Amino acid sequence: MFTKVLIANRGEIAVRVARACRELGAAVVAVYSDEDRDSAVVRLADEAVRIGPGPARRSYLYMPAIIEAALRTGADALHPGYGFLSEDPDLAQVCQDNGIVFVGPPPHVMECLGDKVSARRLMAATGLPLLPGTLEPVRDAKEAARLAAEIGFPLILKAAAGGGGRGMRVVREERDLAQAFSTTRATGQALFGDPRLYAERYLHRARHVEVQIVADRHGNIVQLGLRDCSVQRRHQKLVEESPAPGLPDDVVAEMSACAVRGARAAGYVGAGTFEFLVDPDDGRFYFMEVNSRIQVEHPVTEMVTGVDLVQEQLRIAWGLPLSMKQEDVAPRGCAIETRINAEDPARGFVPAPGVLEEFTAPGGPFVRVDTHAYPGYRIPAAYDPLVAKLIVWGPDREQALARMKRALGELRTSGPRVTTTAGFLTRLMDDPAFRAATHTTSLVEEMERHE
Amino acid sequence: MFTKVLIANRGEIAVRVARACRELGAAVVAVYSDEDRDSAVVRLADEAVRIGPGPARRSYLYMPAIIEAALRTGADALHPGYGFLSEDPDLAQVCQDNGIVFVGPPPHVMECLGDKVSARRLMAATGLPLLPGTLEPVRDAKEAARLAAEIGFPLILKAAAGGGGRGMRVVREERDLAQAFSTTRATGQALFGDPRLYAERYLHRARHVEVQIVADRHGNIVQLGLRDCSVQRRHQKLVEESPAPGLPDDVVAEMSACAVRGARAAGYVGAGTFEFLVDPDDGRFYFMEVNSRIQVEHPVTEMVTGVDLVQEQLRIAWGLPLSMKQEDVAPRGCAIETRINAEDPARGFVPAPGVLEEFTAPGGPFVRVDTHAYPGYRIPAAYDPLVAKLIVWGPDREQALARMKRALGELRTSGPRVTTTAGFLTRLMDDPAFRAATHTTSLVEEMERHE
Repeated sequence: MFTKVLIANRGEIAVRVARACRELGAAVVAVYSDEDRDSAVVRLADEAVRIGPGPARRSYLYMPAIIEAALRTGADALHPGYGFLSEDPDLAQVCQDNGIVFVGPPPHVMECLGDKVSARRLMAATGLPLLPGTLEPVRDAKEAARLAAEIGFPLILKAAAGGGGRGMRVVREERDLAQAFSTTRATGQALFGDPRLYAERYLHRARHVEVQIVADRHGNIVQLGLRDCSVQRRHQKLVEESPAPGLPDDVVAEMSACAVRGARAAGYVGAGTFEFLVDPDDGRFYFMEVNSRIQVEHPVTEMVTGVDLVQEQLRIAWGLPLSMKQEDVAPRGCAIETRINAEDPARGFVPAPGVLEEFTAPGGPFVRVDTHAYPGYRIPAAYDPLVAKLIVWGPDREQALARMKRALGELRTSGPRVTTTAGFLTRLMDDPAFRAATHTTSLVEEMERHE
Repeated sequence: MFTKVLIANRGEIAVRVARACRELGAAVVAVYSDEDRDSAVVRLADEAVRIGPGPARRSYLYMPAIIEAALRTGADALHPGYGFLSEDPDLAQVCQDNGIVFVGPPPHVMECLGDKVSARRLMAATGLPLLPGTLEPVRDAKEAARLAAEIGFPLILKAAAGGGGRGMRVVREERDLAQAFSTTRATGQALFGDPRLYAERYLHRARHVEVQIVADRHGNIVQLGLRDCSVQRRHQKLVEESPAPGLPDDVVAEMSACAVRGARAAGYVGAGTFEFLVDPDDGRFYFMEVNSRIQVEHPVTEMVTGVDLVQEQLRIAWGLPLSMKQEDVAPRGCAIETRINAEDPARGFVPAPGVLEEFTAPGGPFVRVDTHAYPGYRIPAAYDPLVAKLIVWGPDREQALARMKRALGELRTSGPRVTTTAGFLTRLMDDPAFRAATHTTSLVEEMERHE
């Protein structure tokens, strides 16, 4: 196994990766910005390297500082976590060029899947169902108008280099199209350095369902079941669960098979997620995108399958075959994750960071907490607002929901100006549509309208 | 389900039971002594009732105060936890007389099993293998000498009303017998109000292995696998795991069957544990005792089976059938528990309580912490030294051991005068005999001799 792994990330995922490294006997190098000087991973790591000031573009997005830290500490592998540079094929390439193993797919695979247009084209060619839309980037507003006539309204414009729910815009009427086109182009350029965009039909009432896969270098691909992530706000997930509730068995089987087929077509290696939209009216599903990295919601899959996905990533990167065969995967019960964000749901989820004077995590049976927070931790305003993930397991969905309510009730997060999503999430656990698993991605929007 | 449950206990198990009640929708009544005024369960509970001053005999062992608290708060059930009055048939009877459901077996079952002599007799009649010894209490030192000639040395004298590793004395030579006889009698009288004792052959090199069973009021009995608790010091368990490593399949099957047969013979209802000793030289096993309550080490069984044992106790007490059938029980992987005690291993494990200025529990994948401690918690000197239980799961024993080392490494417990067993337990994880699972109940003793 690797002797030393550099974790090119921060927050809870850096802690998560550090734990996997420890368990596999690898030393841990943390990197941190000035804002994160006192972060939990710095305390847990064997070595910690400052990589720059607070703004991500000068630290966690600044490749030269990260590579230098890896070379200086003699790390033989680099784990990118999620977000930041995790889906940047350049980082994978630069690692390779410097003799550092990048824990993720090969650069060309990341490149193909990171470009949503080429990913869409590959998956269409592989026979995965897609929503009506474009297989080539849309050149200008005029072409968009012509395509819109074919696709129909509402449609969604997406940045080709986007992902993780950013760089998207729903267009409901023709008269909004030109404006939306130029805004999405500008967003794509600003966020991802790529103005290209594509269009597809927009499903207003949809379930977000995804398949976790793992693939090794020896041609083995295993799918680890589905996750439902339909509880979203502005395309940001708030609650995730596995298995996906209420889907017919044949849909589950077909979607899983599509993910494995897609991964094989892409030459995928590592842990990855195939995201789909499900139309709840007819049960049909449509390929959306592939995330070529570990996801925030990976713990729900871990709890139902017993597979440690981050350890698996490291094993795959080291060249080992998968630790399981498809027939060994025997999911048990139901797991749910809620994201405790430092946001104020009463004020449109505006960030509400500050010092956590009190922080008590829930514990006990079938409760897992992934967090970098601790009593006295100052939540930086510079990064995403995720403070902790609560993950619970139960033999069925109802018992998992009861356990989540119990766990949320034990959580204590207080401090001047700090507000979290915990109260909102507690109310959500009692929402009739959510309880019945008949909700769609517009649930949170509807809840906000009624509050 | 019950509307309100009184928890007649303290410490981590009170918190554990409160969590199960919450998840089942029952309100929680905590009771506390003056020493436990600031305890975690008081904070978690819906109501909390002071039952007396610090010494247990004036609070947690004082039945009138506990029953009064239950009646005053209108609790419809009482959960006794472990230790204290949990195996006292009088408490079960008094609950019954007052219309409060006692979460445990019926009084007459507790009475039969609590008396180790009658339990031994019943299990012998049921065909369970027993070590050579007495089926009637030993009347006097003279009779003991006569029996010793039959049993041989070393033998062990045990208080008939004992249990939980207390009230026992190993006698290695005839000349020590008379003295040991009177000491054990006196201990039995002092600890359990019962001077009767019995004798059996003492296995110096033995594994402590036990079977978890659950039985409902409808005649269903299910065994939930084995636990190995061989890591002990003076009959107090320090580390427990499930499944029991290194036992041949036929021994596992026979021992499990014995537990189910014994439970049926006793008319058992509730969660219970059949304890056995295994002779590692020939693989033979011998019935030792039944614990008619939840055990400290129950979480390892929960982690491998997915069954919430405390919820199951409450469901059984409410009259529901078991939530699982024997054929549904599919243990997965390996779980290990370590007991973090406020004790100083360097000074013969003397209690080392104090204020926990710092308390950080480990977290992340497949790690569970059951504790009543928090930063600033004052560990009372009046009670047992258990501060927290760390429980980890892994797909196999080796990965579970690696995870336990990781979890122990994350634990922070510091404060003036506070010492814990965490460091000792960390070293234990690397002990060659423990790693190879060839250790016996004398492992800790041997480790102490070498340190």
